[in-house]
Amino acid sequence: MTDPKSSSVAENSPLQHIRIVMVNTFHPGNIGAVARAMKNMGVYELVLVEPLEFPHAEATSRAAGAVDILENARVVATVEEALEGCSLVAATSARRRGFAWPMQSARSAMQQAYSEASAGAKIAIMFGPERSGLPSETLRLANMHVYIPANPEYDVLNVASAAQTLCYELWVTHSEGALPEHEDKAEYPSHDAVEHFYGHLEEVLNHTGFINPKHAGDIMVKLRRLFTKARPEVGELKMLRGVLASIVKPKK
Amino acid sequence: MTDPKSSSVAENSPLQHIRIVMVNTFHPGNIGAVARAMKNMGVYELVLVEPLEFPHAEATSRAAGAVDILENARVVATVEEALEGCSLVAATSARRRGFAWPMQSARSAMQQAYSEASAGAKIAIMFGPERSGLPSETLRLANMHVYIPANPEYDVLNVASAAQTLCYELWVTHSEGALPEHEDKAEYPSHDAVEHFYGHLEEVLNHTGFINPKHAGDIMVKLRRLFTKARPEVGELKMLRGVLASIVKPKK
Repeated sequence: MTDPKSSSVAENSPLQHIRIVMVNTFHPGNIGAVARAMKNMGVYELVLVEPLEFPHAEATSRAAGAVDILENARVVATVEEALEGCSLVAATSARRRGFAWPMQSARSAMQQAYSEASAGAKIAIMFGPERSGLPSETLRLANMHVYIPANPEYDVLNVASAAQTLCYELWVTHSEGALPEHEDKAEYPSHDAVEHFYGHLEEVLNHTGFINPKHAGDIMVKLRRLFTKARPEVGELKMLRGVLASIVKPKK
Repeated sequence: MTDPKSSSVAENSPLQHIRIVMVNTFHPGNIGAVARAMKNMGVYELVLVEPLEFPHAEATSRAAGAVDILENARVVATVEEALEGCSLVAATSARRRGFAWPMQSARSAMQQAYSEASAGAKIAIMFGPERSGLPSETLRLANMHVYIPANPEYDVLNVASAAQTLCYELWVTHSEGALPEHEDKAEYPSHDAVEHFYGHLEEVLNHTGFINPKHAGDIMVKLRRLFTKARPEVGELKMLRGVLASIVKPKK
């Protein structure tokens, strides 16, 4: 389908800052279908976390004219590697969880992602395995949970359909050329910097006795949720690290 | 993917006036994938014009939870039969034709289709065979040609991806019309409870030495900004108070 008003994907297009991450994909055909959906919508970077079978003839066949995306795909062993360097991590979630994480619809989430990519940030959009979706511990690594509005009578989308929908929203935002009203000038820390903060926080709370290592419960999960809502900027994260350092000082 | 604000497909929903028409489909898997995309987005009526192979195990497998749509699908011999009773016929087109037809983007076309369906009209949305798309003589039967904005470097979408995109636009229009903006069930603490927290936080940071009382600067302002973004709920504020209490314990 051709967009008469379409723009091409320039060298420095914000779309080039967007990475699709497929976690533990079961059917290789879905990897190919996602690659095609990506290229159709101007998104080129694919990272696969432990796919069951890849490369595979069915992936190549379903990719059609997007075989280059498969050829350039990186296969990695962990979600952490896949998210490296990304300051906005969006996770798609197949089910409503009891646990309320900041949730956004496909359209507003992709507008925000495009806007942050335009400001130079690196973005990851994660898709889980076909049957189960992303496990809770992986969902917690995301800044944002994205839902695709769907029929409550059957709301589980095929992973390639979900990727198609999100990439389509990115391309529409891109081709409209108009950024959403909201311009967020903030600079956000990388995924790994945020994880270091959580590690430090847990260490300090063990030290103060707020966390009992034998009955840690879900305190860290609750704190992650709170800080995900706050989404600390680079300077704020540095300040929080300073607070932690002031609590547990090197022994004199 | 679940829409927390989703509406169900009521008996007399405008979506029930929308018919998907697949013409001369080559791969039965694509018929199944279209059925799934339809049901995910609340569209139930499928008509197949001379599919190469149907029914077929691959169609059933790719339909997943939408097998009912395949079972109720009508197979007909001509496009005319498939379009019977429809007052708006939208055709998707894989290529730009020399032939200038009224063309609309996916979003505006589906908004128009939904609006006409709401007024009681019967709508058909046609998809052509995988390799060639709809032939010109079939395109001429349409009131409207729909394009899906796409990357000019590779703008040929898989038929199920195209159906997913159009049905998604229909569902978004449907669910936006029906639903309240935002339902936030969280319980937030009172203004004074939050102020007590800030008082406690400042006291603790004086104690740890993070704040130098002589040069306090704007640390508390920065922390207020961060926690305002997080907007702690009642339980979260209680947890934060617990964290503070664990840092400065009563002298033993």
